[in-house]
Amino acid sequence: MTDLVKMGEAAKAAAQQLAQLSSAEKNAALLTMAEALVSATPMILEANAADLAAASALPTKFTDRLRLTAVRVADMAAGLRAVAALDDPTAKADKGWRTEAGLFIVQQRVPLGVVGMIYEARPNVTVDAAGLTLKSGNAVILRGGKEALRSNIALAGVLRSALTQAGLPAAAVQLIEDPGRELATQMMHLTDYIDVLIPRGGAGLIRAVVQQATVPVIETGAGNCHIYVDQAANLTMATAIVVNAKVQRPSVCNAAEKLLIHRGVAAAYLPALARALQAHGVTLRGDAAARTIVPSMQPATAADWDTEYNDLIMAVKVVDSEDAAIGHINAHNTKHSETIVTDDYAAGEQFLSQVDAACVYVNASTRFTDGQEFGFGAEIGISTQKLHARGPMGLTALTTTKYQIRGNGQVRK
Amino acid sequence: MTDLVKMGEAAKAAAQQLAQLSSAEKNAALLTMAEALVSATPMILEANAADLAAASALPTKFTDRLRLTAVRVADMAAGLRAVAALDDPTAKADKGWRTEAGLFIVQQRVPLGVVGMIYEARPNVTVDAAGLTLKSGNAVILRGGKEALRSNIALAGVLRSALTQAGLPAAAVQLIEDPGRELATQMMHLTDYIDVLIPRGGAGLIRAVVQQATVPVIETGAGNCHIYVDQAANLTMATAIVVNAKVQRPSVCNAAEKLLIHRGVAAAYLPALARALQAHGVTLRGDAAARTIVPSMQPATAADWDTEYNDLIMAVKVVDSEDAAIGHINAHNTKHSETIVTDDYAAGEQFLSQVDAACVYVNASTRFTDGQEFGFGAEIGISTQKLHARGPMGLTALTTTKYQIRGNGQVRK
Repeated sequence: MTDLVKMGEAAKAAAQQLAQLSSAEKNAALLTMAEALVSATPMILEANAADLAAASALPTKFTDRLRLTAVRVADMAAGLRAVAALDDPTAKADKGWRTEAGLFIVQQRVPLGVVGMIYEARPNVTVDAAGLTLKSGNAVILRGGKEALRSNIALAGVLRSALTQAGLPAAAVQLIEDPGRELATQMMHLTDYIDVLIPRGGAGLIRAVVQQATVPVIETGAGNCHIYVDQAANLTMATAIVVNAKVQRPSVCNAAEKLLIHRGVAAAYLPALARALQAHGVTLRGDAAARTIVPSMQPATAADWDTEYNDLIMAVKVVDSEDAAIGHINAHNTKHSETIVTDDYAAGEQFLSQVDAACVYVNASTRFTDGQEFGFGAEIGISTQKLHARGPMGLTALTTTKYQIRGNGQVRK
Repeated sequence: MTDLVKMGEAAKAAAQQLAQLSSAEKNAALLTMAEALVSATPMILEANAADLAAASALPTKFTDRLRLTAVRVADMAAGLRAVAALDDPTAKADKGWRTEAGLFIVQQRVPLGVVGMIYEARPNVTVDAAGLTLKSGNAVILRGGKEALRSNIALAGVLRSALTQAGLPAAAVQLIEDPGRELATQMMHLTDYIDVLIPRGGAGLIRAVVQQATVPVIETGAGNCHIYVDQAANLTMATAIVVNAKVQRPSVCNAAEKLLIHRGVAAAYLPALARALQAHGVTLRGDAAARTIVPSMQPATAADWDTEYNDLIMAVKVVDSEDAAIGHINAHNTKHSETIVTDDYAAGEQFLSQVDAACVYVNASTRFTDGQEFGFGAEIGISTQKLHARGPMGLTALTTTKYQIRGNGQVRK
């Protein structure tokens, strides 16, 4: 029987050790883990084949994410090596100053402690999360989707052996092997042992964690992203951006789901834009004004404005002004990524200033909201909340700070 | 009947306006609020007198915090003027860089939006919180202790009139006037309208909010703070620090509650230190080893090690090593403020590195954990959690960031 409190205690003890390691020690362990994964490829693929066999009735979209291949295992190993090459956020202080009383205060970056990950049946998250948490000096407790359990057990086993081989505590990476929901619920309330919970997956999973957890959560991923084509837009650029944001990878959270278009350009431009999207297989759903211009659109319902499709569907709304576009976005978005296409300086600045989202763009595809594209090198997720971290989360999002204060006998007057 | 959803909608609308104000506009409003408070002193004191009359059966410690005087009103006004003089955190960007794709990303500081404050019967918090949230561009919904309701209604009324006079939305500052618990509970679940809840008050209040709220909470205040007197301590300095940390203001969260003393100096030093503390009226509770040395101590029970007294009581434990002191602290502290007194360089560095707390000190009183002492100018509380903000929270803790990204047609490959 899985004893979560025991796992929590082991994680906490491991975290205290990890927090004291040098970057070199953590990097060496990451390289050992990468090598171990590659060596264990046949065993990992065998476990994954068993998961795939049990999941054969599930949709291809699902099994595609569950499936591992030798190339994918090599990619995961390469990911660990890439994380080893990143800067260690806990090797840095944010600032330091001397106070009026003569105290020298340093705001030092330190690991969070124990990170809990709850995710779906994507075995690569097991390795990604283990690598990122280790690099940032944290222990991790993993709870992946039950359909990937055999794969995850194989992967976590390899990673834990590698940790031991590298002289680090195996409890730095622990996997909950009991697939029951009770364990997940218990995990969400393990406030004495888990410092932060990061759910990764669909909107349902994330909502469940946010609503149930008493452990602090970093909310990630939901992306009802908009593109607003202003009346002053360069329309060639607008088409390129809208098509890219919608079709380049429609299943991900930074894909655009909604198109808002200024009434001043809608009649002349929307037919061509609609054809460009439809040529890529996009189904369009329009409001009344949009359907008057492009009658082939399906009618959009009220629910459409709040729906993340993650698919080749886009809802289209004609707006009377930029104010109306911003008002609609702030009322319906998930605070992820929003773009204006415009050549009007003031319109661009207004959009940047007034739209409430983690990432607000002028004249670029929403698809750039990504740790790699931002230059963070790797990401643990994209935060759509306002506290702690907002937008793509690199290694620093897995740390906190500690004030280290050096005195020489100061007492308070 | 108080309609919290309506209050939430009004707060959200006000927050969108506040986020667009210049620092000068916010500062002018703060000065108007300060002036209005001073002008309204007789009306405020009358309301407070009614609160005090109704609370006459409550302990002096309680009514002392509830009581307003002309001087205290003037102090609150001075506090608002001091906040006006602080730097505006939302006038700053944290960083900016150009990505490989040529996007220019700026990580801009922006207000959180709507802040919820839940606090006890201390009317000064009403004014403090209104000033700090306004300066950082946030709207605030206040829910103070019911014994201060008349005072809070008077204060909030003055502040709201001043906001209107300054041309800002009165809904920037809203007070829940219904003292029922149901409203507080509803407030803790108002996720669509409140971006962060900050409870201020005793451990019971904070625990209730943390356990019940689905709105993200910043946990503040609990302080089971330790001082560890190392065997290499300068004992004169140790006495000054321990006495200051315990007796200078025992009711506050950064006062020391526990004394850990190395066995190597305990027998020779503890009697003198105990006398110094007892001379200030401190009751000592010791473990067996401490009581062998100072028999006048009461015996400490297991519960003592986890108790924040907020009073002239201190529990004393003799430890065999610094490792034992650190182990005890990490097992029992509330992650607030911890001090080592030592002249041993390595001992000091080990303590700074291994103790898990917001503020870790070498050779200084724990009493310095405070926004003013840190140089932040004002504080909204002291965070004892690890996410978002840790330690004294100045205005920046009331903000988040937004990535503003300027492109020229970039699409993702």
